[in-house]
Amino acid sequence: MKRTLNKETNELADKQVKIAGWVQTIRAHGKIVFFDLRDRSGILQVVFIPGSPAYEEMKKIKPEWVVEITGKINKRPDKMVNEKIETGTVELEAKEIKVLAESDPIPFDYTEKDLQVSLPTLFDQRPLTVRNEKIKAIFKLGDVVLDSFRKTLKTMDFTEFQSPNIVPTVAEGGAEIFKIDYYKYKAYLSQSPQLYKQIMLGAFERVFTIAHVFRAEPSVTTRHLSEYVSLDAELAFIESWEDIMDVCEKVINNMVQDVQRNCKKELELYEAKEPEVGTIPRIKMREAQEIIFKRTNRDHRKESDLDPEDEKEISKWALEEHKSDFIFITHYPTKKRPFYTYPDPKDKDYTLSFDLLFRGLEIVTGGQRINDYKQLTDNIKKWGNDLNNFSFYLQTFKYGLPPEGGFAMGSERIVKQYLGLANLREATPFPRDMERIDQSLSITKKKKK
Amino acid sequence: MKRTLNKETNELADKQVKIAGWVQTIRAHGKIVFFDLRDRSGILQVVFIPGSPAYEEMKKIKPEWVVEITGKINKRPDKMVNEKIETGTVELEAKEIKVLAESDPIPFDYTEKDLQVSLPTLFDQRPLTVRNEKIKAIFKLGDVVLDSFRKTLKTMDFTEFQSPNIVPTVAEGGAEIFKIDYYKYKAYLSQSPQLYKQIMLGAFERVFTIAHVFRAEPSVTTRHLSEYVSLDAELAFIESWEDIMDVCEKVINNMVQDVQRNCKKELELYEAKEPEVGTIPRIKMREAQEIIFKRTNRDHRKESDLDPEDEKEISKWALEEHKSDFIFITHYPTKKRPFYTYPDPKDKDYTLSFDLLFRGLEIVTGGQRINDYKQLTDNIKKWGNDLNNFSFYLQTFKYGLPPEGGFAMGSERIVKQYLGLANLREATPFPRDMERIDQSLSITKKKKK
Repeated sequence: MKRTLNKETNELADKQVKIAGWVQTIRAHGKIVFFDLRDRSGILQVVFIPGSPAYEEMKKIKPEWVVEITGKINKRPDKMVNEKIETGTVELEAKEIKVLAESDPIPFDYTEKDLQVSLPTLFDQRPLTVRNEKIKAIFKLGDVVLDSFRKTLKTMDFTEFQSPNIVPTVAEGGAEIFKIDYYKYKAYLSQSPQLYKQIMLGAFERVFTIAHVFRAEPSVTTRHLSEYVSLDAELAFIESWEDIMDVCEKVINNMVQDVQRNCKKELELYEAKEPEVGTIPRIKMREAQEIIFKRTNRDHRKESDLDPEDEKEISKWALEEHKSDFIFITHYPTKKRPFYTYPDPKDKDYTLSFDLLFRGLEIVTGGQRINDYKQLTDNIKKWGNDLNNFSFYLQTFKYGLPPEGGFAMGSERIVKQYLGLANLREATPFPRDMERIDQSLSITKKKKK
Repeated sequence: MKRTLNKETNELADKQVKIAGWVQTIRAHGKIVFFDLRDRSGILQVVFIPGSPAYEEMKKIKPEWVVEITGKINKRPDKMVNEKIETGTVELEAKEIKVLAESDPIPFDYTEKDLQVSLPTLFDQRPLTVRNEKIKAIFKLGDVVLDSFRKTLKTMDFTEFQSPNIVPTVAEGGAEIFKIDYYKYKAYLSQSPQLYKQIMLGAFERVFTIAHVFRAEPSVTTRHLSEYVSLDAELAFIESWEDIMDVCEKVINNMVQDVQRNCKKELELYEAKEPEVGTIPRIKMREAQEIIFKRTNRDHRKESDLDPEDEKEISKWALEEHKSDFIFITHYPTKKRPFYTYPDPKDKDYTLSFDLLFRGLEIVTGGQRINDYKQLTDNIKKWGNDLNNFSFYLQTFKYGLPPEGGFAMGSERIVKQYLGLANLREATPFPRDMERIDQSLSITKKKKK
């Protein structure tokens, strides 16, 4: 298979080689022509000297064509290397060139550091915009975040499983669910792997899954996607619900380390600061509201949740007072949480649950779950659900499940906050929302009926 | 957090400890009572001696209850250790016991080596059957298979990405697709991450994804699932389409090594033989049909595909003649493959495509893809598709994509063949088919309308 342009050619000075890549830029200095040739490893400069067989052939080639070139690797003059041109310490003197694929003229210059395109264009033309270095960096970071999550939990003896996307029922209530025509029946797209995590817990005690989850969000915000990737973990035999936050904190600390180690170049492109992390402060929602009130005079002390402004304010406080870009908010009201959330034995209006905020945005939600069969069935009814819809799931509790809990991280939200992206859609290569699947729906699709 | 029962207690002889687990079995020898207590690490024997505070409390406890016990760790007599009782070299002498969760009487003995339940019961009661050691082994193997796939490709500089499940159009033709109500529009569940792999290739050159894919199979066979997990890889700048098989062969060889190393106990439970693998034979479909004809007198030489019997026969041949449990079948007819498959330049009725068979079952399908824009658009039309449905995808080729190809592995099929399971449904914790989502649909759901 082909050599990479940047890493493998540096050792080949004076050798004849065959290489291949995309033509990124074409420059002429008098009669001599230079190509910057690109592949996943970076850039190699190619020189075309009049008289070589490649020279005439080269003239028809345009940016983004894919070519194969044979020639000789030459060391580049020291001066140019010192200028830190990112094209390496060698260049290729082209002898022969062969076209592997042609390209239409590109509609905008995707090689600029900052793409000058609107958000709709960014997504409509994703096959081209994804080739931009700064855009690629987003998805490299996403890859590292997922990998780090898995790695940390594997070292803690968690087992990975695959949670299904097709589900028989609306498990957590709410209208924001997509319906599927499933043979002769109606089925739904999963809103969360929660119930399946708990089932698997009965066998494996500690499980995680990377699951696509689906929310029929009826509005377009900068914080929501109709399909996103949830990093979901669950562990049994907790001795305190704080055990769950401990595991979450460990995952976050390792993630920051892994990203800093593996995404140096990517972080630089965004001038992204290393997050402040360590022991993450844990405060109750009511305490957070009190702090916000004192700082801003905004009185949300009776509200049953933090709004986006509150989340930003309490994150600012955490950074100022605890030098932490992360903060756990705990004890959300019982009525705002799903039926399986464990009520605080000291005050049953509140739950042993938490959110983790990262630079002002909720990126994790978790908590202890009810593991007692009777308490759980009572709650399912109290939340207005039909017990029959839960007969499969409830077997888990009928046959003994230890005290347990878990959490779910929104992978795109982590990436968004890390790089300071303005819109959550930018953090996924193929965003889905009420106006878009790949391209804008209003342009590509007719409405039903 | 709690100590594991098997690994961590062995070092604690004569110490007072607190442990917790599921009560797996209860045995009495005269007045002394033994519990086998289970957690993810294995079994610890607990002894209840008359007169201890735990003794009276213990009497109400039944199998599958979850308990926390404090007591003293004692070394077990040598004789018992020598009998290789899997309950370790120590036991716990119970002082106090606390119930963490109760259990209904279990409807069948899930602790037997081979579960004596029908297939419908196996799935209907998955929350209980998944606790059986031999069933758990299946999903442990699945975890290792996925991990190995990722690990091999990462070392080869592949980038992981997440392919969307909601897609705007029927990409590869065919009626076997699930429809979604997507806001005011119709959308579909993805049948393959193929198009998205190719888009990402333009940026990353080598990509993979672990994708849930969906097929509305209108019949129930032992070889199909309505939702399964596809291990999908794609690489650019191939110099020959055989490069793709080389990568696939590497993935398979590493996978066998990783499974043999990490799943010793699991393989023993199934008496699963280590697969014969190394250089995997590669033969054309027409040659395979010729060999089958010679061996069995079954003349399928004019058929455009191998049927399940053919796949078994040619796999037998590969094992006998090449000492290989795997065989690549290549050059499937053009009309049987999707529009993007690269035709063999030497004979355009056949394609540069392959299947990989493992012990008689197709587990991988792959091949070179058409990377020329005009050739691809011609083919989309020739296959009866509307070009407008592919405008997003086609940008990839409009702006230059190198020669490339890839493959997709059915993760459940690998597990099924490895362990010799009779039915593909057994290889996934939550099988979906036309008769089942979690539980049997005919029992749990009303038909539409």
